[in-house]
Amino acid sequence: MITCGIIGASGYAGAELVRLLSGHPEVKGLVLASTSKPGEALEAVYPNLLSGGQGQALPLLVGPAEACEADVVFCAGPSGLAEEWALLARAGDRLFIDLSADFRFGSDEATYEAWYGKKYGQPGLHAGAVYGLPELNRARIAGARLIGNPGCYPTASSLALFPGLRLGLAQREGIIIDAASGLTGAGRELGRSSHYAEAADSVTPYKLGSHRHTPEIGAVLSAMAGGEVETPVFTPHLAPMGRGIVSTTYFRLAKALTEAELREAWASFYSAEPFVRVLGEGLAATNRNVRLSNYCDISVHLAHGGKVGIAVGALDNMVKGAAGQAIQNMNIALGLEETAGLKALPPAF
Amino acid sequence: MITCGIIGASGYAGAELVRLLSGHPEVKGLVLASTSKPGEALEAVYPNLLSGGQGQALPLLVGPAEACEADVVFCAGPSGLAEEWALLARAGDRLFIDLSADFRFGSDEATYEAWYGKKYGQPGLHAGAVYGLPELNRARIAGARLIGNPGCYPTASSLALFPGLRLGLAQREGIIIDAASGLTGAGRELGRSSHYAEAADSVTPYKLGSHRHTPEIGAVLSAMAGGEVETPVFTPHLAPMGRGIVSTTYFRLAKALTEAELREAWASFYSAEPFVRVLGEGLAATNRNVRLSNYCDISVHLAHGGKVGIAVGALDNMVKGAAGQAIQNMNIALGLEETAGLKALPPAF
Amino acid sequence: MITCGIIGASGYAGAELVRLLSGHPEVKGLVLASTSKPGEALEAVYPNLLSGGQGQALPLLVGPAEACEADVVFCAGPSGLAEEWALLARAGDRLFIDLSADFRFGSDEATYEAWYGKKYGQPGLHAGAVYGLPELNRARIAGARLIGNPGCYPTASSLALFPGLRLGLAQREGIIIDAASGLTGAGRELGRSSHYAEAADSVTPYKLGSHRHTPEIGAVLSAMAGGEVETPVFTPHLAPMGRGIVSTTYFRLAKALTEAELREAWASFYSAEPFVRVLGEGLAATNRNVRLSNYCDISVHLAHGGKVGIAVGALDNMVKGAAGQAIQNMNIALGLEETAGLKALPPAF
Amino acid sequence: MITCGIIGASGYAGAELVRLLSGHPEVKGLVLASTSKPGEALEAVYPNLLSGGQGQALPLLVGPAEACEADVVFCAGPSGLAEEWALLARAGDRLFIDLSADFRFGSDEATYEAWYGKKYGQPGLHAGAVYGLPELNRARIAGARLIGNPGCYPTASSLALFPGLRLGLAQREGIIIDAASGLTGAGRELGRSSHYAEAADSVTPYKLGSHRHTPEIGAVLSAMAGGEVETPVFTPHLAPMGRGIVSTTYFRLAKALTEAELREAWASFYSAEPFVRVLGEGLAATNRNVRLSNYCDISVHLAHGGKVGIAVGALDNMVKGAAGQAIQNMNIALGLEETAGLKALPPAF
Repeated sequence: MITCGIIGASGYAGAELVRLLSGHPEVKGLVLASTSKPGEALEAVYPNLLSGGQGQALPLLVGPAEACEADVVFCAGPSGLAEEWALLARAGDRLFIDLSADFRFGSDEATYEAWYGKKYGQPGLHAGAVYGLPELNRARIAGARLIGNPGCYPTASSLALFPGLRLGLAQREGIIIDAASGLTGAGRELGRSSHYAEAADSVTPYKLGSHRHTPEIGAVLSAMAGGEVETPVFTPHLAPMGRGIVSTTYFRLAKALTEAELREAWASFYSAEPFVRVLGEGLAATNRNVRLSNYCDISVHLAHGGKVGIAVGALDNMVKGAAGQAIQNMNIALGLEETAGLKALPPAF
Repeated sequence: MITCGIIGASGYAGAELVRLLSGHPEVKGLVLASTSKPGEALEAVYPNLLSGGQGQALPLLVGPAEACEADVVFCAGPSGLAEEWALLARAGDRLFIDLSADFRFGSDEATYEAWYGKKYGQPGLHAGAVYGLPELNRARIAGARLIGNPGCYPTASSLALFPGLRLGLAQREGIIIDAASGLTGAGRELGRSSHYAEAADSVTPYKLGSHRHTPEIGAVLSAMAGGEVETPVFTPHLAPMGRGIVSTTYFRLAKALTEAELREAWASFYSAEPFVRVLGEGLAATNRNVRLSNYCDISVHLAHGGKVGIAVGALDNMVKGAAGQAIQNMNIALGLEETAGLKALPPAF
Repeated sequence: MITCGIIGASGYAGAELVRLLSGHPEVKGLVLASTSKPGEALEAVYPNLLSGGQGQALPLLVGPAEACEADVVFCAGPSGLAEEWALLARAGDRLFIDLSADFRFGSDEATYEAWYGKKYGQPGLHAGAVYGLPELNRARIAGARLIGNPGCYPTASSLALFPGLRLGLAQREGIIIDAASGLTGAGRELGRSSHYAEAADSVTPYKLGSHRHTPEIGAVLSAMAGGEVETPVFTPHLAPMGRGIVSTTYFRLAKALTEAELREAWASFYSAEPFVRVLGEGLAATNRNVRLSNYCDISVHLAHGGKVGIAVGALDNMVKGAAGQAIQNMNIALGLEETAGLKALPPAF
Repeated sequence: MITCGIIGASGYAGAELVRLLSGHPEVKGLVLASTSKPGEALEAVYPNLLSGGQGQALPLLVGPAEACEADVVFCAGPSGLAEEWALLARAGDRLFIDLSADFRFGSDEATYEAWYGKKYGQPGLHAGAVYGLPELNRARIAGARLIGNPGCYPTASSLALFPGLRLGLAQREGIIIDAASGLTGAGRELGRSSHYAEAADSVTPYKLGSHRHTPEIGAVLSAMAGGEVETPVFTPHLAPMGRGIVSTTYFRLAKALTEAELREAWASFYSAEPFVRVLGEGLAATNRNVRLSNYCDISVHLAHGGKVGIAVGALDNMVKGAAGQAIQNMNIALGLEETAGLKALPPAF
């Protein structure tokens, strides 16, 4: 039995970690930390987390340093602030899983600086960080002590494209990714675009050609292909939904295949993965079917007389796109059952 | 370990039973039945239920008679069809839990006929049926073999009003119930009012003064009060949400109380209930906080210079309003832990 | 041809005034004012207002004083700030229509102070203010120079109840109003409850027993009845929709009537009103059918064996609940066609 | 003053024609036709269209033949049924505007048959049909008597791409179109995917590689380019909104340009168009800003180090994507002011 600390527990990803870890069979205690609200009750912000009947209330919020004394430390704050706590966790030899972008670029400080506007404060820390995409990096995650949890768009997009690149079925140039995200994707901070009256009933592309997830996607696709993949065009859209990402990716085929062959290649590739479902003929991946679960659904299709392949990846941005994947990483890193705490129930409809 | 049969598995309530029972620790097998689709796979209708990785697929749909051979039979079809399967289950001495209105009226056939337009086919069956509201009838549910699972509106509304009526704090005349339901409430059948383009962005009252849940609410309130309660005015509204019921109930106080005293009375009354949460000062019950859980949240308020009390009940109509409550009833009837399979995780936000 | 000044043009009600006045046949010029953004273009905040093709751009935002030089001054800022501009408009003998609560209470300063926490700065101004509900006050609005435009909830609720009170068909005690509003109702300011991820998929009651519209509703009902009406219980709910209010009101009948007689009484009462539609049998009022229009739809129903009447009022909170009604008031005050600029098209579905 | 007949008045596009034509200054009478409901009132299906006050009710529904006696006949039924009424209209020398796909392919019967599964019954009719996209075909529409009104996706997508193809800035191969539509797009017929509980809170791609609008898009792009354009990859998605289409199109640049130059090229190209707005820097096209209007908003962007251009087209599928464009075509064909009846008000937010 382990204890888990959560820094940034009052954000959406933090609260989702609390929710999921509350049902994890190997977790016996939570330390909830917040820089802005120490001393307060998380239930005041998230009344859904209130205990019922004789149930036990969550512990009050404490400061981040205290959370770094737990066996596993999840850091769910905004990018740019994780190094301090990662250092502290390393000093105490705790497993540190960061949900921001701070540890996703390993030793490629130049890319991090170019897109996040900040140099590494502790370059030495980053060399040992593992990119926490289990389907790509399971072996390196096992035993890791510092994990950079992937972004939600990169997870959906790269899992959709992975078989094509690894198996040499997709060309490495000219990939286009057109994706939609729900409103939890941008976090709890309020902005005009997250006001209900602005967001409802409309689809809006944003940060065209300039979203920060672009270089992360480029890097993970190259790692998947085992060689340089041209950074894809990536266009995110805001869609009127709470949770969910649907990423429709386009690639040119490297050789002629029927749609059935393509689907079969994807299905075989992922056949042993506990959290990837390759859908059968006639189904298209949608976030509707993975709601509140750690699944990434993938459907593959042919267009354009067979010259262009389309792979759609769909996931719940709060689970496989954030908190669920972080727990999957914890499970692997600690040698627990990989699905522990993540398969309590099928996805909700 | 038990087996569960589900008649009407392809409806919304049936599919939710499948989802929840998939995670129930005492359930080892499901028999899924459908009159319209025997031989088909439920996953074709609900791809969210697809198994991932090495997981096991659900059994194919069979006919209802086969489901009646399981240890527990849930009947989740429309009202008017349950008697046949209840008879069959009784013949085999199985626990039968009906989610339609067919067994909610016990021996009061006249009321059933007046509102559902049908006489009892098997009057003898009904005398032994127990109304499955655990907070009211827990002792009678224990050991029962035939349970009429309550409607979603009656559950939310009567749990909100229960303490006031039982403790004599609320007057028994002049109760008004104004409630809103999401679109799953009307089931999967398609109607103009359930088309997205009609339902979105609007609130619409329906069946004013004539909704079938009215007499059920009247009956359960009288049972709660331990004496005749005047049938309340009940107005349901359709609101643009998937799941959820919020029932705002109005009653005249029987004696002067402060809001704090009122809240305290409700909280004490329900203090031992595992699935009722009485909210503290400043919070109002909303379906947002009980999503996908078996909780009914209740908030109590004073208005009108203290002459009128308001009790708001909120629940997920598919869980505490249908499938979850049915499982709670199963747990009680069979002497299992009452919360088994129902507290895997806190409510989702 | 007249000019119109709009103070608070960048708020939701202000922008809706701009939109509607752009199509008004008697308006030849707009002066748009904002305390926070003078010098900027309103289209930067509301790109929907961009002119297309050879169309003419809106004038840049100016300060409020400049708006007070127009023939008609609409003040669409928050409550508590209108007196200064009303004084200025009076000095220039302009028609001043305030959309906040500042001029809704006439000489009843005590009520205003009790609910809005502020004394009148210019008590003399208020005595001459007319409550701008045309269906109640048309004769007094004609020729008025200072108009307090009603709140959205009071408009929907009081129009629903008006015939019953005026005709003596409804009792004056024990009225209950249960209403739902969309998210534009709270204005453009951001709050946690207006974040899409919080507001979507849920109905939430708020300010139970304490909403500021309560005394306004009480006052207008008394004016309608021609005698004291007990302040009703009023419970607003936030519902996941952009625009719209649906107010379900309950009253005890003062004498026995059939539902058809009740409906006929309402229909006759409003037969000459251009913006009130009393719906026929089988229809319930919903904001879906009045979207973007100045209509208030009303349906009437009987419950409880004929003892309780239910009148539902539905309107678009930005039009009949704010900007549209303000323009209707302008039309009446200036002796223009009452429907000018307000009946370009039927409501959108 | 003219009369307009509407066949299929009870469908969504038909009802939107009724709504818009009700405010058209040159239209003095409507003949509403329906094959399924002759004799009934359209207001029974669309209570939003009820007249208020002393207003005049719509005429009762009649049969299609009667509608063909009006000066202008709009046919808003499903594809495959328009020829009969087009013949009748031609016999009476009426202007016939078909909103289905039946007259969009001119003499290219092979393509129509391949995608719509039906041969032309009256091949001679089609040769004279004009594709009703005013921005492309204004001169041919003037004076036309048979117009095939474009599909919603083709309108949004081709208007976005038009300047690039016509000016030789975009390559003609490898175009990808990724688009999202609201739920009115599929019409009033009920299907599982249009049930609120299925459609809400999710984005779902459909008909990947096989949507019927694909060949229409290919044909119109070729016409725009003045030479063969490779049929693009087209992926539609269903998004949880009532109205609206957002089409994000990707093309490779034919020569190096800055984003500002690209934007300027688009803006100049469309500078005289009354219903196309090319947005300035920092804005992305979204259906939110064109709601209920006949505008198509377009934003252009560069990605991928300037190698890939992105043009986003957004419109209201019921207006510029159907009924509004049909009226624009009527205005041009009859020599009326092109914007008559279509610019009553700016788009709603």
